[in-house]
Amino acid sequence: MVRVIVIYDITDDTQRTKLSNELFKIGLSRIQKSAFSGDIDSQRFKDLTRICQDFIKSSNDVIHVVTLGIRDWERRIVLRGE
Amino acid sequence: MVRVIVIYDITDDTQRTKLSNELFKIGLSRIQKSAFSGDIDSQRFKDLTRICQDFIKSSNDVIHVVTLGIRDWERRIVLRGE
Repeated sequence: MVRVIVIYDITDDTQRTKLSNELFKIGLSRIQKSAFSGDIDSQRFKDLTRICQDFIKSSNDVIHVVTLGIRDWERRIVLRGE
Repeated sequence: MVRVIVIYDITDDTQRTKLSNELFKIGLSRIQKSAFSGDIDSQRFKDLTRICQDFIKSSNDVIHVVTLGIRDWERRIVLRGE
Protein backbone atom coordinates (compact mmCIF):
# COMPACT_ATOMS: atom_id res chain seq x y z
CA MET A 1 0.00 0.00 0.00
CA VAL A 2 1.12 3.56 -0.59
CA ARG A 3 -0.15 6.79 0.97
CA VAL A 4 -0.97 9.39 -1.68
CA ILE A 5 -2.04 13.01 -1.68
CA VAL A 6 -3.71 14.30 -4.85
CA ILE A 7 -3.87 18.09 -5.20
CA TYR A 8 -5.48 19.64 -8.26
CA ASP A 9 -6.61 22.77 -10.04
CA ILE A 10 -9.13 21.81 -12.73
CA THR A 11 -10.73 24.76 -14.51
CA ASP A 12 -13.93 23.13 -15.79
CA ASP A 13 -16.53 22.54 -13.05
CA THR A 14 -17.92 19.36 -14.63
CA GLN A 15 -14.45 17.86 -15.11
CA ARG A 16 -13.51 18.80 -11.56
CA THR A 17 -16.62 17.05 -10.18
CA LYS A 18 -15.97 13.97 -12.34
CA LEU A 19 -12.38 13.80 -11.10
CA SER A 20 -13.45 13.98 -7.46
CA ASN A 21 -15.96 11.16 -8.10
CA GLU A 22 -13.18 9.03 -9.58
CA LEU A 23 -10.92 9.76 -6.60
CA PHE A 24 -13.69 8.69 -4.22
CA LYS A 25 -14.18 5.51 -6.33
CA ILE A 26 -10.48 4.68 -6.06
CA GLY A 27 -10.84 4.87 -2.28
CA LEU A 28 -9.38 8.28 -1.48
CA SER A 29 -10.93 10.79 0.95
CA ARG A 30 -11.33 14.52 0.46
CA ILE A 31 -9.06 16.61 2.69
CA GLN A 32 -9.68 19.95 0.98
CA LYS A 33 -11.95 21.27 -1.80
CA SER A 34 -9.38 20.18 -4.38
CA ALA A 35 -7.24 17.69 -2.52
CA PHE A 36 -7.67 14.02 -1.65
CA SER A 37 -5.63 11.50 0.29
CA GLY A 38 -5.63 7.81 1.15
CA ASP A 39 -3.82 4.50 1.08
CA ILE A 40 -3.98 2.59 -2.21
CA ASP A 41 -2.23 -0.47 -3.64
CA SER A 42 0.21 -0.32 -6.53
CA GLN A 43 -2.38 -1.33 -9.16
CA ARG A 44 -4.74 1.43 -8.01
CA PHE A 45 -1.82 3.85 -8.06
CA LYS A 46 -1.30 3.04 -11.76
CA ASP A 47 -5.03 3.50 -12.34
CA LEU A 48 -4.88 6.80 -10.46
CA THR A 49 -2.23 8.38 -12.67
CA ARG A 50 -3.93 7.12 -15.84
CA ILE A 51 -7.32 8.46 -14.68
CA CYS A 52 -5.87 11.82 -13.61
CA GLN A 53 -4.30 12.29 -17.05
CA ASP A 54 -7.80 12.18 -18.60
CA PHE A 55 -8.87 15.27 -16.64
CA ILE A 56 -6.10 17.57 -17.85
CA LYS A 57 -7.97 19.55 -20.52
CA SER A 58 -6.65 23.13 -20.39
CA SER A 59 -3.26 24.75 -19.91
CA ASN A 60 -4.43 25.97 -16.48
CA ASP A 61 -5.16 22.44 -15.29
CA VAL A 62 -2.62 20.81 -12.97
CA ILE A 63 -2.68 17.69 -10.80
CA HIS A 64 0.02 16.80 -8.24
CA VAL A 65 0.19 13.16 -7.14
CA VAL A 66 2.50 12.88 -4.12
CA THR A 67 3.36 9.62 -2.34
CA LEU A 68 4.68 9.75 1.19
CA GLY A 69 5.55 7.49 4.09
CA ILE A 70 2.80 6.57 6.53
CA ARG A 71 4.84 8.11 9.39
CA ASP A 72 5.05 11.40 7.52
CA TRP A 73 1.28 11.29 7.06
CA GLU A 74 0.68 10.47 10.73
CA ARG A 75 2.90 13.40 11.78
CA ARG A 76 0.91 15.89 9.68
CA ILE A 77 -0.61 18.85 11.49
CA VAL A 78 -4.31 19.51 10.88
CA LEU A 79 -5.60 22.89 12.07
CA ARG A 80 -9.39 23.06 12.04
CA GLY A 81 -11.94 25.69 13.10
CA GLU A 82 -14.23 24.84 16.02
CA MET B 1 15.64 21.55 6.23
CA VAL B 2 12.25 19.89 5.86
CA ARG B 3 10.00 19.65 2.82
CA VAL B 4 6.45 20.76 3.60
CA ILE B 5 3.15 20.86 1.76
CA VAL B 6 0.49 23.25 3.11
CA ILE B 7 -3.06 22.60 1.87
CA TYR B 8 -5.90 24.82 3.07
CA ASP B 9 -9.55 25.74 2.81
CA ILE B 10 -10.02 29.25 4.24
CA THR B 11 -13.54 30.63 3.85
CA ASP B 12 -12.81 34.37 4.07
CA ASP B 13 -11.20 35.80 0.91
CA THR B 14 -9.15 38.41 2.77
CA GLN B 15 -7.84 35.87 5.28
CA ARG B 16 -7.03 33.45 2.47
CA THR B 17 -5.02 36.12 0.62
CA LYS B 18 -3.20 37.11 3.82
CA LEU B 19 -2.30 33.46 4.49
CA SER B 20 -0.89 32.99 1.00
CA ASN B 21 1.20 36.17 1.44
CA GLU B 22 2.59 34.77 4.70
CA LEU B 23 3.39 31.44 3.02
CA PHE B 24 5.25 33.27 0.26
CA LYS B 25 7.12 35.28 2.94
CA ILE B 26 8.19 32.06 4.70
CA GLY B 27 9.69 30.92 1.41
CA LEU B 28 7.08 28.49 0.11
CA SER B 29 5.84 28.33 -3.50
CA ARG B 30 2.28 27.98 -4.70
CA ILE B 31 1.52 24.58 -6.27
CA GLN B 32 -2.26 24.98 -6.44
CA LYS B 33 -4.81 27.74 -5.69
CA SER B 34 -4.86 26.70 -2.04
CA ALA B 35 -1.68 24.67 -1.64
CA PHE B 36 1.97 25.62 -1.16
CA SER B 37 5.19 23.67 -0.86
CA GLY B 38 8.87 24.27 -0.17
CA ASP B 39 11.90 23.46 1.95
CA ILE B 40 12.12 25.31 5.27
CA ASP B 41 14.31 25.04 8.37
CA SER B 42 13.01 23.90 11.75
CA GLN B 43 12.60 27.48 13.09
CA ARG B 44 10.54 28.47 10.07
CA PHE B 45 8.49 25.29 10.49
CA LYS B 46 7.60 26.43 14.04
CA ASP B 47 6.74 29.88 12.66
CA LEU B 48 4.63 28.22 9.96
CA THR B 49 2.39 26.30 12.34
CA ARG B 50 2.00 29.33 14.63
CA ILE B 51 1.14 31.60 11.67
CA CYS B 52 -1.30 29.10 10.18
CA GLN B 53 -3.19 28.87 13.49
CA ASP B 54 -3.97 32.62 13.23
CA PHE B 55 -5.90 32.08 10.00
CA ILE B 56 -8.36 29.51 11.34
CA LYS B 57 -11.42 31.71 11.92
CA SER B 58 -14.48 29.62 11.05
CA SER B 59 -15.55 26.01 11.56
CA ASN B 60 -15.16 25.47 7.81
CA ASP B 61 -11.51 26.51 7.83
CA VAL B 62 -8.88 23.76 7.71
CA ILE B 63 -5.13 23.75 7.11
CA HIS B 64 -3.05 20.59 6.58
CA VAL B 65 0.70 20.89 7.14
CA VAL B 66 2.41 17.77 5.82
CA THR B 67 6.17 17.10 5.99
CA LEU B 68 7.72 14.56 3.66
CA GLY B 69 11.06 13.23 2.55
CA ILE B 70 12.84 14.97 -0.30
CA ARG B 71 12.84 11.69 -2.28
CA ASP B 72 9.07 11.42 -1.92
CA TRP B 73 8.78 15.00 -3.19
CA GLU B 74 11.10 14.34 -6.12
CA ARG B 75 9.07 11.26 -7.07
CA ARG B 76 5.82 13.23 -7.21
CA ILE B 77 3.90 13.19 -10.49
CA VAL B 78 2.83 16.56 -11.89
CA LEU B 79 0.29 16.45 -14.72
CA ARG B 80 -0.09 19.80 -16.43
CA GLY B 81 -2.09 21.02 -19.41
CA GLU B 82 -0.15 22.17 -22.47
